[in-house]
Amino acid sequence: MASSSLYAAIDLGSNSFHMWLVRHVAGRVQTVAKIKRKVRLASGLDQNNVLSEAAIERGLACLALFAERLQDIPTEHIRVVGTATLRVAVNAADFLVRAKQVLGHDIQVIDGEQEAATIYQGVAYTTSGHGKRLVVDIGGASTELIIGEQTQAKLLNSLKMGCVTWLERYFSDRCLNASNFDTAIAAAKTMLAPVEADYLNLGWDLCVGASGTVQALQEIMMAQGMDEQITLDKLYRLKQLAIENGRLEELDIDGLTLERALVFPSGLAILIAIFERFAIHSMTLAGGALREGLIYGMLPDAKPQNEDNCERTIHQLMTHYCLDNAHANHVAGVASQLLHALSEADQQAIAPLLTSAARVHEIGMTINFKGANQHGAYIIRHSDMPGFSRSQQDFLAQLLARCHEPLQPLDCQHALPPQQAIFCLRLLRLSVILGQRRTYPQSVPAQLCCEQGNWQLTIAQTWLNQHPLIAFELQQEAVRHSDMGWPLSICTSAD
Amino acid sequence: MASSSLYAAIDLGSNSFHMWLVRHVAGRVQTVAKIKRKVRLASGLDQNNVLSEAAIERGLACLALFAERLQDIPTEHIRVVGTATLRVAVNAADFLVRAKQVLGHDIQVIDGEQEAATIYQGVAYTTSGHGKRLVVDIGGASTELIIGEQTQAKLLNSLKMGCVTWLERYFSDRCLNASNFDTAIAAAKTMLAPVEADYLNLGWDLCVGASGTVQALQEIMMAQGMDEQITLDKLYRLKQLAIENGRLEELDIDGLTLERALVFPSGLAILIAIFERFAIHSMTLAGGALREGLIYGMLPDAKPQNEDNCERTIHQLMTHYCLDNAHANHVAGVASQLLHALSEADQQAIAPLLTSAARVHEIGMTINFKGANQHGAYIIRHSDMPGFSRSQQDFLAQLLARCHEPLQPLDCQHALPPQQAIFCLRLLRLSVILGQRRTYPQSVPAQLCCEQGNWQLTIAQTWLNQHPLIAFELQQEAVRHSDMGWPLSICTSAD
Repeated sequence: MASSSLYAAIDLGSNSFHMWLVRHVAGRVQTVAKIKRKVRLASGLDQNNVLSEAAIERGLACLALFAERLQDIPTEHIRVVGTATLRVAVNAADFLVRAKQVLGHDIQVIDGEQEAATIYQGVAYTTSGHGKRLVVDIGGASTELIIGEQTQAKLLNSLKMGCVTWLERYFSDRCLNASNFDTAIAAAKTMLAPVEADYLNLGWDLCVGASGTVQALQEIMMAQGMDEQITLDKLYRLKQLAIENGRLEELDIDGLTLERALVFPSGLAILIAIFERFAIHSMTLAGGALREGLIYGMLPDAKPQNEDNCERTIHQLMTHYCLDNAHANHVAGVASQLLHALSEADQQAIAPLLTSAARVHEIGMTINFKGANQHGAYIIRHSDMPGFSRSQQDFLAQLLARCHEPLQPLDCQHALPPQQAIFCLRLLRLSVILGQRRTYPQSVPAQLCCEQGNWQLTIAQTWLNQHPLIAFELQQEAVRHSDMGWPLSICTSAD
Repeated sequence: MASSSLYAAIDLGSNSFHMWLVRHVAGRVQTVAKIKRKVRLASGLDQNNVLSEAAIERGLACLALFAERLQDIPTEHIRVVGTATLRVAVNAADFLVRAKQVLGHDIQVIDGEQEAATIYQGVAYTTSGHGKRLVVDIGGASTELIIGEQTQAKLLNSLKMGCVTWLERYFSDRCLNASNFDTAIAAAKTMLAPVEADYLNLGWDLCVGASGTVQALQEIMMAQGMDEQITLDKLYRLKQLAIENGRLEELDIDGLTLERALVFPSGLAILIAIFERFAIHSMTLAGGALREGLIYGMLPDAKPQNEDNCERTIHQLMTHYCLDNAHANHVAGVASQLLHALSEADQQAIAPLLTSAARVHEIGMTINFKGANQHGAYIIRHSDMPGFSRSQQDFLAQLLARCHEPLQPLDCQHALPPQQAIFCLRLLRLSVILGQRRTYPQSVPAQLCCEQGNWQLTIAQTWLNQHPLIAFELQQEAVRHSDMGWPLSICTSAD
């Protein structure tokens, strides 16, 4: 019997064929296998858009590998799509007939608009943020541009330019000089001209990128200790760096992997053109794109989501790791209660991360009570957490690593300004101590007051008398905060 | 409402009071809190065995802390026991009345035999091994000696000597000299004399120790890179080292923690006496003792277990981490099939660890597909795994870290002889490749033949043709084995 918790998405791209095999377990999508082959289908097209027999055979050989794993998956849990190259190849039908025989499954060649719509769904399921979103996906032979809001795409375009075609056209001499870059950027801007007005008119609140180029940028920025916002300044700097390397085969940028190097300059040129044309301030990496859109579209309980992706991710972690939900929510409640002491601006910035950390603060206990802080940080740092940016995820991991004694300063991080990051850590630690009872509902008569950097936590005397362990830990905690230069005093009040 | 998945065991020991709070979740016992206070109740006894008011108050203050957490736990999920000091204190009843008021829960003073029986249950639930088992637990004021088989204790004794009483009696001048050690050892041997014959007559197959002294020994041996078998030779070496340190406050042995140092020499003297009297060859550390006996005795599905503890631990991990059981068992089945190629002796030594590794080989995917090997090794290395020794657990972690490409040599480890360890790793990797289909039942027509170090894997030609991905991976794998100096050839057979 084919296992019904398995799902597969196959994407026959212009550069690579990808198979993504997942298991849908405890509400989470768990990757079981990722298989990728550089089929270079696009390079098999001649001037008349005829796909060469050699390219077809490379494709079929790859599909034979995929076919083996597909046998274990119910047909209705499989989606196989072809994109740009198969849209333009005049003999695509020949390929598709032979491919179906090998694969044992239908291949759907989707048009540019369908591709853009699926990419948008993949982004919507995996990336958080409010308001209108501009999504940019630079593929091998096409670039998709979408504006949408929540799960609804509003403006879709697929343009016939990609990092493989731009490489062949504008960097065919393999020279990374200003002239090649300028020509490539200018050509991309020409492609963008007809749609530019539509996008500028509709407008957007935030911008995310979903492609190898943007992933490569993210890796480079992380390796170089930068924050995760892609800006035009950074793109220009990288273009300059590439030019200094001189030739494609000598390209060597800290954080750039061999796998992504070949099509990085051409992708960069396209991205610069998009940034310039659309006057984009900054862009972040999306959590998913086409394959995620295909998989999430098949899952029974993941139909269009208007709920917050961060919220969903935290909920899934709580379920998958069998956390004590009542306790997690109780500690999160105490955290919200204390948070009111801060300014409105601080509250808004801190609340989502503080609540998320409070709800998973016991996740490390799944591995072991001993070292639970470190285990929790390990799990959070290494998990896929759709909705959270890399720096938010790293910050959550840091919070968990520090949520019990000892109190250590936060390392350099970009999720929140330093002052708010410290507030978040302090509030989490106090909430974990104050919220340690496990009978619910459980009111905690504590009130925080923050004045000019001095924190004062006032607790009802009777309650504190009934909770000598909490009283003991709070006294220790106050000393730790004060030792870090964060004054905290504990007072009692009549009830 | 008190949370009904919570359980608590409190042990009012002669040296420390301990509270262990657990959550029974997905079949596993997850520690929620461990609170310990050095109450030093025994040192509050005068010559007439009257407990001083100061000692009583130290005890009550500690119980007040425990009481706070106990409120969240249903009464029938709590066990509180007093041991040696409360057995001998003539005014124990006074303490117990006041203690019950503070704690809100009955305290049961158990006699030596009950204590020994509970310790044995704690060992039986957490330690694996076949045949008769001698259990030694050196407490603060008593030492328990038990022989049992599976969950059945057969011979129980509690002797009135412990590491606190022996410290006060034989190391009161705080000198670590040969004379103090000799006197302490001789006194312990005198205590053992009356029961010695009973134990030697009944006999045992293996010996485990369950106490701070044995834990300290384990930590010292690990810190110094030794294997985990405690032998009389090692005990003599440590005694010599202690004597070279001269005085108790100067005791400094690599791996010995401050927390355990004070009562380490006195505990060591008692353990040497037991080794000498009973002619013990070697001893390992038990996975639990009194508190584990109390907790496991209350759990609904953990009534007397004759099943294997390793088996239970692996099963619990599979459940808790929502592993794909069918797949795990399929890969374990392939591993068993290949294992038949080895000698009977190799099979017996390797089978339990190979099967365990195969069944949890996907555990790292819970955290992320990317880096799953490392995540799996991390989980296994840091989890409590009742039934597995420390070195077995480390070996399992190493297997998981190496269960997919690349193939790395094993680090120094003590769970299996080097040759068998390599066999185990090779079989696991081949099983993971051969068993990657996920439709069940799924027969894998592969046969291994091992002759003079040359491995030959023969696979049915038709099946291999249907599985090009497996064929591809097997060819790569054969090269990797051969590169490590472990010849492996892949052949095909007609069906």
